[in-house]
Amino acid sequence: MLIGQTIDTNSAWMAQQLNKAGIWVKRRVAVGDLWEEIWQALDQEAAQSDVVLITGGLGPTADDITKPLLCEYFGGRMVVDEGALDNVKYIFEKVLKRPLIERNLKQAEVPDVCRVILNKRGTAPGMWFEKGGKIFVSMPGVPYEMKGMMEDDVVPELLRRFEVPAIVHRTLFTAGQGESYLAERLRDFEPSLPPHIKLAYLPNYGMVRLRLTGRGADAAALEQEVAGRFDELQFLLADCTISQEDESLETVIGKLLMKKGKTLATAESCTGGYIAHLITRHAGASAYFAGSVVSYSNAVKRKLLGVKQETLDSRGAVSEETVRQMAAGVLQQTGADYGLAVSGIMGPDGGSEEKPVGTVWIAVAGKDKIMAKKLWFRFDRERNIDLTAANALLMLRTLILTGD
Amino acid sequence: MLIGQTIDTNSAWMAQQLNKAGIWVKRRVAVGDLWEEIWQALDQEAAQSDVVLITGGLGPTADDITKPLLCEYFGGRMVVDEGALDNVKYIFEKVLKRPLIERNLKQAEVPDVCRVILNKRGTAPGMWFEKGGKIFVSMPGVPYEMKGMMEDDVVPELLRRFEVPAIVHRTLFTAGQGESYLAERLRDFEPSLPPHIKLAYLPNYGMVRLRLTGRGADAAALEQEVAGRFDELQFLLADCTISQEDESLETVIGKLLMKKGKTLATAESCTGGYIAHLITRHAGASAYFAGSVVSYSNAVKRKLLGVKQETLDSRGAVSEETVRQMAAGVLQQTGADYGLAVSGIMGPDGGSEEKPVGTVWIAVAGKDKIMAKKLWFRFDRERNIDLTAANALLMLRTLILTGD
Repeated sequence: MLIGQTIDTNSAWMAQQLNKAGIWVKRRVAVGDLWEEIWQALDQEAAQSDVVLITGGLGPTADDITKPLLCEYFGGRMVVDEGALDNVKYIFEKVLKRPLIERNLKQAEVPDVCRVILNKRGTAPGMWFEKGGKIFVSMPGVPYEMKGMMEDDVVPELLRRFEVPAIVHRTLFTAGQGESYLAERLRDFEPSLPPHIKLAYLPNYGMVRLRLTGRGADAAALEQEVAGRFDELQFLLADCTISQEDESLETVIGKLLMKKGKTLATAESCTGGYIAHLITRHAGASAYFAGSVVSYSNAVKRKLLGVKQETLDSRGAVSEETVRQMAAGVLQQTGADYGLAVSGIMGPDGGSEEKPVGTVWIAVAGKDKIMAKKLWFRFDRERNIDLTAANALLMLRTLILTGD
Repeated sequence: MLIGQTIDTNSAWMAQQLNKAGIWVKRRVAVGDLWEEIWQALDQEAAQSDVVLITGGLGPTADDITKPLLCEYFGGRMVVDEGALDNVKYIFEKVLKRPLIERNLKQAEVPDVCRVILNKRGTAPGMWFEKGGKIFVSMPGVPYEMKGMMEDDVVPELLRRFEVPAIVHRTLFTAGQGESYLAERLRDFEPSLPPHIKLAYLPNYGMVRLRLTGRGADAAALEQEVAGRFDELQFLLADCTISQEDESLETVIGKLLMKKGKTLATAESCTGGYIAHLITRHAGASAYFAGSVVSYSNAVKRKLLGVKQETLDSRGAVSEETVRQMAAGVLQQTGADYGLAVSGIMGPDGGSEEKPVGTVWIAVAGKDKIMAKKLWFRFDRERNIDLTAANALLMLRTLILTGD
């Protein structure tokens, strides 16, 4: 983690789950695979918190030192756990269908001073320790395995052991107004909040999520109080609200399409399938998404979307005429009710004086209407692709809402 | 960060850059937007490291408390920095083309005890403090802005101030063998490494990256020593090596296609454009990627890929016959040299007894050959999509390498 080889998605997921359960995450610390560093971090964190959750370092290879370290830290000795052993055997024989080797059997060894947490999704068992009134839980770093243990065992057990305060979040999803402008519009609202309700601004690609977080002893009363404040917030920002839920832009659009019983198709050049991916990563997308033509080459633009060769020659692939033809073409080819088309230069190469890197044309189409817009982003390739997708989806939302 | 609303991608990027420059990242800590927590973290981290890099909390809204806190921590008072002010004005007038409001001018205020770091990409200035022989650098949390400051100012300045050891990484990218099996094959190699060269196993979706990291005073000698060890590693694992570079699977395939002067097209049902996105997120993909048909609906499978209605009726959309027709269809429609097709049930719904959630058919096609394979993944939707993409690309690599 500390050399940046992997992005830590575990801690965000864990924080969400803990927060939802009313467990306050005080700190998140990453340390290297070094004995002294891990040992010291255990001391330091236990001094500040009641529970220390640990992930990773439980694999079968020599760079995984967490298990022997925990054994020594809690003054235990390594023993084979029969339940963990059965699990390792089961996974190799039935799931992986591979021969079990000596090294894998080691996975079933645990310090005799822990309670073993069954890992239904992998071979490394979880371990629950207690020392000096503090709880330490060690889980595998594989996200899928860690998630199973958190849901099935760790969070429920923590809730049995602690009285936790209620935490209530409500999020307003806005677009079209920058963080500072929103803050100006909320300059009377914000100071009026009681100390146990906080407002956070979460900006992302020209969209800002405003999150109210309340903490209190009485869950029902808190729920009601936060709901009242959330109503005020909605009233103040009605004109730029996209959703009253904390959800993605493509989910907002999916719900709109479902409600209207309409379908969508995309024709993507510069985003290369990313918009289709955003839509289809959500379960149930097949109810409103017909498909996409990722027309990276001009030949595909012509053949599968009916873009005219003369348009490509005279206006170029990144032009208003081309995206209009792409949007019309994908509607015609797929029979969808709405179409979305993008063509642009994402960089770092391919720009010209007339069409610099970051130039994008977007078109959105309904049965009787096509709207097109040119945008210019000045970022790196990844962010240009993200921004193109976000802006195309925002334009599509406007088209769907205003009718066609 | 601590409620899991955002995934921390900054720290991975920062760690990579620092590591590359020979600066050792000892710890990574996230704390809440609370005065005492931040204050205490500054004390604690400065006690353990020479440099403390801080991101976030510099926005114009009330939940951003880092700047006033740093001002008090270092005993300064807030003053307007003329350079930062000019930058704020420039960004609003020339880039955002929006009126400047009072709140934005606040962005130009900094403690008088810091050196200001120009933010060419945003309004919040960076700040460089020194206290008790330790360096503290505060940067915005917006990744794009932080990256600019790190590259242009922070890393070069740190390299001027410190003598850093050389760090050399070499990564072998393998597929087809689990972590434990690789460890068995390296049981003589691993203990033979000197203490200043470490081996790490980085498993991901059935592929394992093996990274050698060497640290030493003499960069050239270290480079040579690590290269020698890396050659041994390659020799030992030649049969399962995918690449001698630390690169993505789609990059490996892109290079192969470039070398052969061939092109690729994909026909994606269950991955919904994700494979096309993986390929096109890399600059230069247009040299070898023709495009994709994301055939989410059966109508699109028929119309754009030529899948037969009778096949869909008798065998279903998730079947060997369907993916073979999809692969052949996308080759025919796009004129590409290689085609890849996937159709499966990613979940959580849509499974049946005969075809449970996680069932996937993959076909890869060259001009004269189509190969198809059925796989069954038992994970969540996101991971099923990832695994389908990884396995399809691995199959495609085999097809390209074995010729057709």
